[in-house]
Amino acid sequence: MNVKPMNLLFTSSGRRGYLLDYFRSALDGRGEIHAANSDQRASSFLHADKSVVTPLIYDENYIPFLLEYSVANRIKAIIPLFDIDLPILASAKTRFAEVGTTIVVSSPAVAMICNDKLKTDSFLRSNGFNTPASFTSLADTLDALARNLIEFPLVVKPRWGMGSIGVNMAENEGELIVFYEKVRREVQRSYLKYESNVDLEHSVLIQQVLKGHEYGLDVVNDLDGNYVTTFVKKKLAMRAGETDAAITIDSDQLKSLGKKLAGALGHIGNLDVDIFVADDNVSILELNNRFGGGYPFSHLAGADIPQAILAWIRGEQPAPEWLHVRHGVTGTKDLVIRCLSD
Amino acid sequence: MNVKPMNLLFTSSGRRGYLLDYFRSALDGRGEIHAANSDQRASSFLHADKSVVTPLIYDENYIPFLLEYSVANRIKAIIPLFDIDLPILASAKTRFAEVGTTIVVSSPAVAMICNDKLKTDSFLRSNGFNTPASFTSLADTLDALARNLIEFPLVVKPRWGMGSIGVNMAENEGELIVFYEKVRREVQRSYLKYESNVDLEHSVLIQQVLKGHEYGLDVVNDLDGNYVTTFVKKKLAMRAGETDAAITIDSDQLKSLGKKLAGALGHIGNLDVDIFVADDNVSILELNNRFGGGYPFSHLAGADIPQAILAWIRGEQPAPEWLHVRHGVTGTKDLVIRCLSD
Repeated sequence: MNVKPMNLLFTSSGRRGYLLDYFRSALDGRGEIHAANSDQRASSFLHADKSVVTPLIYDENYIPFLLEYSVANRIKAIIPLFDIDLPILASAKTRFAEVGTTIVVSSPAVAMICNDKLKTDSFLRSNGFNTPASFTSLADTLDALARNLIEFPLVVKPRWGMGSIGVNMAENEGELIVFYEKVRREVQRSYLKYESNVDLEHSVLIQQVLKGHEYGLDVVNDLDGNYVTTFVKKKLAMRAGETDAAITIDSDQLKSLGKKLAGALGHIGNLDVDIFVADDNVSILELNNRFGGGYPFSHLAGADIPQAILAWIRGEQPAPEWLHVRHGVTGTKDLVIRCLSD
Repeated sequence: MNVKPMNLLFTSSGRRGYLLDYFRSALDGRGEIHAANSDQRASSFLHADKSVVTPLIYDENYIPFLLEYSVANRIKAIIPLFDIDLPILASAKTRFAEVGTTIVVSSPAVAMICNDKLKTDSFLRSNGFNTPASFTSLADTLDALARNLIEFPLVVKPRWGMGSIGVNMAENEGELIVFYEKVRREVQRSYLKYESNVDLEHSVLIQQVLKGHEYGLDVVNDLDGNYVTTFVKKKLAMRAGETDAAITIDSDQLKSLGKKLAGALGHIGNLDVDIFVADDNVSILELNNRFGGGYPFSHLAGADIPQAILAWIRGEQPAPEWLHVRHGVTGTKDLVIRCLSD
């Protein structure tokens, strides 16, 4: 088989060095791994053949910089790994296509549904999924509390947010009011302000806390947005807002949910989904349209979505075994110290 | 050289697998690495020759369990890696000595000075070190604010606490009051309640937020509490409450501070020290008498305190090169996925 070499660029590569390793294996020597990040100390740089420090995502030079870099380095595909990168790259998809670079990213509309937790809420509701009651107004929240439609504890967090940044648990009205004001101020001081400026008066989300156990899904569509597969994992430990340990499980119920979600959203590539299950009640909490901190637990159990993505880019079909996981595989993230400069 | 084999047991080994690797290298094949943790999914178990799930630290069977395990496995030395483990093991030191097991831990008094942030405060002040103004009473805090002795922002956190658990930043009086009550409730619901029960009415610490850049020290004493050396690192990134990236630096000022601190405290082994430097103003924030999340950055730069500890246990002198770091070495923690069961 004569496979053409293919250079890949990972943007906002951050701490996801393991993902670059997966793609390196998938390339099997036929292409280079490039990593881009605005911080020169990203540990993923240690896993790349070449790495580049970029302007900040919201800098006007960000897209021109990546375009120039892609041309100069014959980048065949860009794989963004950070939420706020997605809408920016989604909007620039055709400009990159013109220079021969495929961005593995959904439409701007899909990126917005995932990044804006209020849009996530209405998307899920209108498609018949359970999701926790959500508010962006303090008055509406207090009203719903008074009418016993919701109850404490409530989560107060940035409407456009990610990970555990600014996530607070309010157990009473005093905390609710204080956290609401605090999150609003914090959003304005952080890079979350860029997306939040769309609707500053509704930049804080107040949400019913879900009971039950947390699960994570990888819901995979191909590059045309057609459903391919779903992997289900039970989360066993969290750290710094991401899955730190998990076990792959067999669940027809959650696989069906993944398939239904994929059909409704029509995203491209991997959709990382956070789910709470209490008794038979399944609620969806968050959608993130990128490889998340939970994907490596699927990969550990035999999945190989990086190989599948490379096949789709080449116009080929992935091998069936890349699209399945063994059930009952438990994994954990381990810390390793690496030298950046000596 | 005929060195006797030596089995080592690491308690509360948690995520510190890299530390077990350092000691494995130091043993150089002459002894076993044992890891103990109350959670069977501790990633450090993957770095041990043998691992054992223990009762919880505050369980009455914890010490009897470890004693029995130490005898059965001919454990020569125990190295605890978790703050709340330290006072419990410090109190049991002679019982272990009777069965031939050395615990690398300070006296109960030193353990208390480090774990109780109010004791840390008075220890530092009475020995002439700068440390942020600290209060355990809301009334005293409001009074100090009114008299302009302190100003917002203030940190509100558990007096007996660790890492980033329950650490809140209050920017005004409303937040201060809400966080004070919240931390008090959280302490009572977590395992922090055991130490906090000593003085429940003063279980929350309110502290002036320090300005400046954060540094970390490893202040090393030998097993008799005599000062040996200090390593200085500038912290470059934090994650989940611990140092995620750092660079070793040369600072006579901070080394002198380490030496003075070691003399005043008389601890045993490694003392992990958090420091803020603003202009020429140096303040000490926390003392943790164990290998901390910052030690690997010293090790990366050439230090080898594990080797030194083994030498001291054998009654030998460490090689001088184990007690020095190269300056300007930058390290980062990287995430690696490992399989716990398949």
